Amino acid sequence: MTGRNNPLYRHSLALLTDLYQLTMAYGYWKLGKADQQSVFHLFFRRAPFGGGYAIAAGLETVLDFLRDFHFDDGDLEYLASLTGNDGQRLFEAEFLDYLGAMKFSCNIDAVAEGTLVFAHQPLLRVTGPILQCQLLETALLNILNFQTLIATKASRICSAAQGEPILEFGLRRAQGIDGGLAASRAAHIGGCDATSNVLAGKLYDIPVKGTHAHSWVMSFDDEMDAFEGYAEVMPNNCVFLVDTYDTVEGVKKAIAVGKQLQSRGYEMVGVRLDSGDLAMLSIEARRLLDDAGFPDATIVASNGLDEEIITSLKQQGATINVWGVGTNLSTAKGQPALGGVYKLGAMQADDGTWQPKIKLSEQPIKTSIPGILQVRRFEDEAGMIADMIYNQQETLTAVDQMTTAVGQNRMRKIPAGLKSYDLLESVVEAGKVVSAEQPISQLRQRTIEQLQRLPAATKRFLNPTPYPVGLEPRLARLRTSMMQDN
Amino acid sequence: MTGRNNPLYRHSLALLTDLYQLTMAYGYWKLGKADQQSVFHLFFRRAPFGGGYAIAAGLETVLDFLRDFHFDDGDLEYLASLTGNDGQRLFEAEFLDYLGAMKFSCNIDAVAEGTLVFAHQPLLRVTGPILQCQLLETALLNILNFQTLIATKASRICSAAQGEPILEFGLRRAQGIDGGLAASRAAHIGGCDATSNVLAGKLYDIPVKGTHAHSWVMSFDDEMDAFEGYAEVMPNNCVFLVDTYDTVEGVKKAIAVGKQLQSRGYEMVGVRLDSGDLAMLSIEARRLLDDAGFPDATIVASNGLDEEIITSLKQQGATINVWGVGTNLSTAKGQPALGGVYKLGAMQADDGTWQPKIKLSEQPIKTSIPGILQVRRFEDEAGMIADMIYNQQETLTAVDQMTTAVGQNRMRKIPAGLKSYDLLESVVEAGKVVSAEQPISQLRQRTIEQLQRLPAATKRFLNPTPYPVGLEPRLARLRTSMMQDN
Repeated sequence: MTGRNNPLYRHSLALLTDLYQLTMAYGYWKLGKADQQSVFHLFFRRAPFGGGYAIAAGLETVLDFLRDFHFDDGDLEYLASLTGNDGQRLFEAEFLDYLGAMKFSCNIDAVAEGTLVFAHQPLLRVTGPILQCQLLETALLNILNFQTLIATKASRICSAAQGEPILEFGLRRAQGIDGGLAASRAAHIGGCDATSNVLAGKLYDIPVKGTHAHSWVMSFDDEMDAFEGYAEVMPNNCVFLVDTYDTVEGVKKAIAVGKQLQSRGYEMVGVRLDSGDLAMLSIEARRLLDDAGFPDATIVASNGLDEEIITSLKQQGATINVWGVGTNLSTAKGQPALGGVYKLGAMQADDGTWQPKIKLSEQPIKTSIPGILQVRRFEDEAGMIADMIYNQQETLTAVDQMTTAVGQNRMRKIPAGLKSYDLLESVVEAGKVVSAEQPISQLRQRTIEQLQRLPAATKRFLNPTPYPVGLEPRLARLRTSMMQDN
Repeated sequence: MTGRNNPLYRHSLALLTDLYQLTMAYGYWKLGKADQQSVFHLFFRRAPFGGGYAIAAGLETVLDFLRDFHFDDGDLEYLASLTGNDGQRLFEAEFLDYLGAMKFSCNIDAVAEGTLVFAHQPLLRVTGPILQCQLLETALLNILNFQTLIATKASRICSAAQGEPILEFGLRRAQGIDGGLAASRAAHIGGCDATSNVLAGKLYDIPVKGTHAHSWVMSFDDEMDAFEGYAEVMPNNCVFLVDTYDTVEGVKKAIAVGKQLQSRGYEMVGVRLDSGDLAMLSIEARRLLDDAGFPDATIVASNGLDEEIITSLKQQGATINVWGVGTNLSTAKGQPALGGVYKLGAMQADDGTWQPKIKLSEQPIKTSIPGILQVRRFEDEAGMIADMIYNQQETLTAVDQMTTAVGQNRMRKIPAGLKSYDLLESVVEAGKVVSAEQPISQLRQRTIEQLQRLPAATKRFLNPTPYPVGLEPRLARLRTSMMQDN
């Protein structure tokens, strides 16, 4: 299974939207504006967790959603039942017929999953009839906000573990069924090695891991019986959970059973610690395992881990070498939502010209960037140098400077001779998905490779140095003049 | 639609579990223990958000999951593909045949949705073959943890709004598709009045609300044109979003359009503020609306609200009378996961007697309560007095005392003459759902009524007084002796 063709949902998801998208759609239709071409950008204004970057994720789920986008009869019946403050229906029948017959026809350009992205850059650009663009907003935000958030969290946790494997265990406390499934998918894109979530393993082709819980041990009269019983039936998958009663005694029993396994021609994978002082207990477990001739046995640890606790355990000399991370990863502890937004950038006038649009705000960070936006990334041999947001209405030739940041008028020189490429690529044309699906292992690999090319100062958790993201000079002038004119 | 019969998911959800549940299931089967009768309790150890209570939610979603619980051929093929550290498969074919043919046969007793629940009390009790009990664990936790968390958050937000309506707007930043749908459902059970989420409205029978966004205004050359255009097409659903450019000017335009509506025989519902100083702007908007003859026009506010900000706005004299709450409600800001667990309470021995089981821990709060547990709630005319957890293996007659708390041996007297009832009710018998579904409006009503019967000192946000939850004396003695024996 690849995750394509919306395997999970039985119900049409066209109603997965805010009601105001439908009331606005009705308005556009009624006023004859339904087909007015427009451009929307999906972006966030601040990287999550106080960090310096995010990892784009969720695009394949968006494409699944779009492949199946339609209003079924039940949806239309439901909309017909909605009423206003006079008790009369909100939507007239002819509009519902229009929705039922509507063919999705937008173009979408998007950043590939596993790509590093920064504040103010479009992750996705939707071009098409304003009615359709608007109907997609809520679902696109829902899917991309969450998966981008979790991929980013996962990348931070992986970074704290310094290359040691991370197992994602979050399903039981995730935010709903798909909160768990989407988290498993995004965590893998963000760098996690495997998940405990079997359905995510099946649907998204993620390696799955798991052995036994405390209840297994409790269901036997004795811990030794429990380990021996487990080793008897599944000798090729033995990680013994050693903390049901006394952890050090548990390690000793695991070693005894590990020796029995060897005599049968199997190798114990290791032990798991799930409570107590993980630094101290892992050091003691390592010593016992090494002394008993199990230098390759893994020590898996879990229990409320996140990037900060893993960093601290490593500083304390913990000898953990596989990290099980659940709740704090899958629910994005510290910031459970990415504040992505979806803003109108331009509309086509009757004469065919594109008119840039801006959303103003008293808060400068909330003022949008007008135009039909694209992002150009500049790199040298060593890594990423800067990203420039530009307006595709302008021809981009021989650009040698950009603003130092979004909202700054000061200019920064772009060094000559850099390699550069655009981040947004066409994924949907005239309503049809045109991008080839990439294996999830490739998306994960992209994350890992791109992070190696990001300056370390931008990757650090505390006070990261902002990665340079500026505006192309003409776009900066357009934005300034539109702010002054309004 | 009622939400019954798993309307959302196309895929069998039997694999929505941690892999270790399946490896343990294999072990139980292989060792001939698969059918050993056992009892598991699902409970949390601390009320969320530093509060004194939680609102049980998610049961109907659990029952949907159980109605459809089966392993399909694709699931079994996937399991057959999994391998251990020797490259050989984990599960032998005969076991997969067993799973494919397995008939779900557990009994489940549960607390009704909308019921007040407290730390250590079972929200759900599963009795049946240990293999089956174990396979359900992860999904039950996923569903009940999240919906209980959100219903509780919603009840806190409703309490801050002092009876004024709360609209839930969280879908766009919720944790995945079902993170949004389940949040809308649970928020309504917890007391919210309506949602913006149209699919949740359809699937779960929740009132839906919405009018227009900033993009509607931006798509016109002028704000006045935008309001007039909206009023022209949907005169019976007019809440004007007034902050796209200048909020006070926006209110004045809304008033002008409100007068046009009146001349057509319609009433403007109100205005919405989505940025800026909500206290100051709402007072100014109220004054303008009142002076213009719109004393009944509603002022809706949104923008990063939660129970603390609503409390603060009320203290500042804000004249908001409908509150739109999104991200912080649907992702449970402050605590994005409820730490519910699922622990073995008892197993049946070969002679048919039930043996209590306990999970010990160096952390006293993590030591479980052994037995087959039930919760009795004592009330007087004015409200709830105390809850007592007892072991259903013991006959409960003439109990007149209980421990002052779980883990305390000191006794508290139970006053004579109180009304009392048990919280756990049978919902599944021999694998079949036996409880009648209740309309969601009734679940919401239960929340509201029960909160009126909870002492105010337990409801407050800061340092709530713990509601008395103790153990029946014989159960307390059993737990103490099992802790000392291990």
